[in-house]
Amino acid sequence: MKTWENYIRKVEPYVPGEQPKDTGVIKLNTNENPYPVSPEVIAAVKQFDTDRLRLYPDPEASVLVDAIAERYNLSSDQVFVGVGSDDVISMCFMTFFNSDLPVFFPDISYSFYEVWADVYRVKYEKKPVDSQFRINPSDYKGKNGGIIFPNPNAPTAIYMELDSVEDIIKSNQDSVVIVDEAYIDFGGQSAVKLIEKYDNLLVVQTYSKSRSMAGMRIGYAMGNERLIKALNDVKFSVNSYTMNATSLAYGAASMKDVDYFNETVNKIISTRTRSEERLRELGFTFPESKANFIFASHRSVPASVIFEELKKRKIYVRYFAKPRIDNYLRITVGTDEQMDKLFEALAEITGDR
Amino acid sequence: MKTWENYIRKVEPYVPGEQPKDTGVIKLNTNENPYPVSPEVIAAVKQFDTDRLRLYPDPEASVLVDAIAERYNLSSDQVFVGVGSDDVISMCFMTFFNSDLPVFFPDISYSFYEVWADVYRVKYEKKPVDSQFRINPSDYKGKNGGIIFPNPNAPTAIYMELDSVEDIIKSNQDSVVIVDEAYIDFGGQSAVKLIEKYDNLLVVQTYSKSRSMAGMRIGYAMGNERLIKALNDVKFSVNSYTMNATSLAYGAASMKDVDYFNETVNKIISTRTRSEERLRELGFTFPESKANFIFASHRSVPASVIFEELKKRKIYVRYFAKPRIDNYLRITVGTDEQMDKLFEALAEITGDR
Repeated sequence: MKTWENYIRKVEPYVPGEQPKDTGVIKLNTNENPYPVSPEVIAAVKQFDTDRLRLYPDPEASVLVDAIAERYNLSSDQVFVGVGSDDVISMCFMTFFNSDLPVFFPDISYSFYEVWADVYRVKYEKKPVDSQFRINPSDYKGKNGGIIFPNPNAPTAIYMELDSVEDIIKSNQDSVVIVDEAYIDFGGQSAVKLIEKYDNLLVVQTYSKSRSMAGMRIGYAMGNERLIKALNDVKFSVNSYTMNATSLAYGAASMKDVDYFNETVNKIISTRTRSEERLRELGFTFPESKANFIFASHRSVPASVIFEELKKRKIYVRYFAKPRIDNYLRITVGTDEQMDKLFEALAEITGDR
Repeated sequence: MKTWENYIRKVEPYVPGEQPKDTGVIKLNTNENPYPVSPEVIAAVKQFDTDRLRLYPDPEASVLVDAIAERYNLSSDQVFVGVGSDDVISMCFMTFFNSDLPVFFPDISYSFYEVWADVYRVKYEKKPVDSQFRINPSDYKGKNGGIIFPNPNAPTAIYMELDSVEDIIKSNQDSVVIVDEAYIDFGGQSAVKLIEKYDNLLVVQTYSKSRSMAGMRIGYAMGNERLIKALNDVKFSVNSYTMNATSLAYGAASMKDVDYFNETVNKIISTRTRSEERLRELGFTFPESKANFIFASHRSVPASVIFEELKKRKIYVRYFAKPRIDNYLRITVGTDEQMDKLFEALAEITGDR
């Protein structure tokens, strides 16, 4: 081993869901949106001025920040943008979680929280969710160096009512509380309206789910001006120009198309309702979903078996071989047609009808 | 002050060069390429399949990594890609610079090195360049936690011969040595050929200068497989999907168009030669440039005055109010027409002909 190898940062790299190159696959494994981007985005792609590629993009990402601010009735200094909500939350860990007290997050949750804590050497304490996978707000009341949780939670799809979210924020005014709302648009109520009331609140959202733009990598945080300034200061110390010219143009176009957004979100919600009914008939149980996925377990066939059998049939869902959740599948809500093919396969695999 | 504000990471944010929104400006301040992207890139923009926006991009960025590997006769596991060379180098600081010994870099150099060292709490020692701004390779021979320098150096444009670069790499086989080649294509010889010989060498390049793609934010590192694996492991712990779908498609297209690349680089070199002659006539001195910019000082008029006067005339160059270099301007080599306008203005400002 070479000397320089001793000084490599030790990490447990996160393993993202499979991105098969085979286009014949029914892809229900990474919670992408089955519907295309807004026609406004397609127009922005067609009209994109290639001459601007030779110039650095606006480091302040104004066109995108302004579009988000307008959509949520905020001022532009209350919005921070990044390369997907992963970049945004990673930047939050680096910016805000520097006390010696542990950061709190649920034990069953987005698995990246632990990865970021490790890479930035942040102490943390995982708070167990209850036997029905629910987050208990009273667990988030001891001394801590910060709090983060998704709402709805992933991979459980369980939504916490805004009153409970507020209770956590209110009880932790010495800490930054991050509500990770990647899935909020599928039926939940955003905490964004609490920003005026609590200066310790950051709400993080993404273009990857409800906006059908996982391919563009755009996420954003909304919060008090001081929080946003701190994030920007750290971001400018890492990389001044993170949002490329296409992200700025396409991201701004998407934010303006509210009608199309509502239409696709509603289609997914209605397919989800139908899917929940059908899954119940097929012998599955699951917590009520307010996300674009369902976290389901079958009464007799192990999740790992169903996962492999579906894969053989070119249907990809997500399986986590982890304590407490290793008998569950996380199934993205696709189109009605995709779900029908899934149900057919599940009927075959489980023998249920 | 709120308690949470005590735990915000303290940083001195980097101030990037101005990106004026006024399009009537002659922009010679951020070393962008005056020529448009390759026609291959324009074709890729036109043909871009908007349906892929809804899906996550390939986390391994294979299409882009493979195109770079092919261009430089490397294997794909010798190439790492990031959101501009800033992202790549920032990731290098985080991945490799974790010993207690100081990292070495020149005192007059890319000012981000210091910013990254601060944000990641890396110890460093700045090695003064000589009175003619040259890096002295023998300064880079003590015990250290890593080495980084640009070649050609910025903002001086001074190129170090490959023998001297090799001398530094060879003398530091216990450390990772990063050669930041943002400007290498404008007349220098890349250290990429030394990768097979030294497993401690990383060569970093960018799409922002010679490839006319600052707007896309693409940078890359080339080196030994173990270095690249370490970088990818850390990157996957921060953000699995940093390169969006457009970066992958447009970046790969650009790399394949060698003829257009050579053509624009040669045009810039020839404008540079002509500009050096004209600047000399106008009373400027400067080190010989092997970059797409010239680092020039006037015999009688202070740089700060020229900077402001040019700005009034809507010509932007870069001025650094820093010790040792505060009587210099960093002037990007634009088109012949842009340079003629610059010379006209300079004649007027300096009274030289």
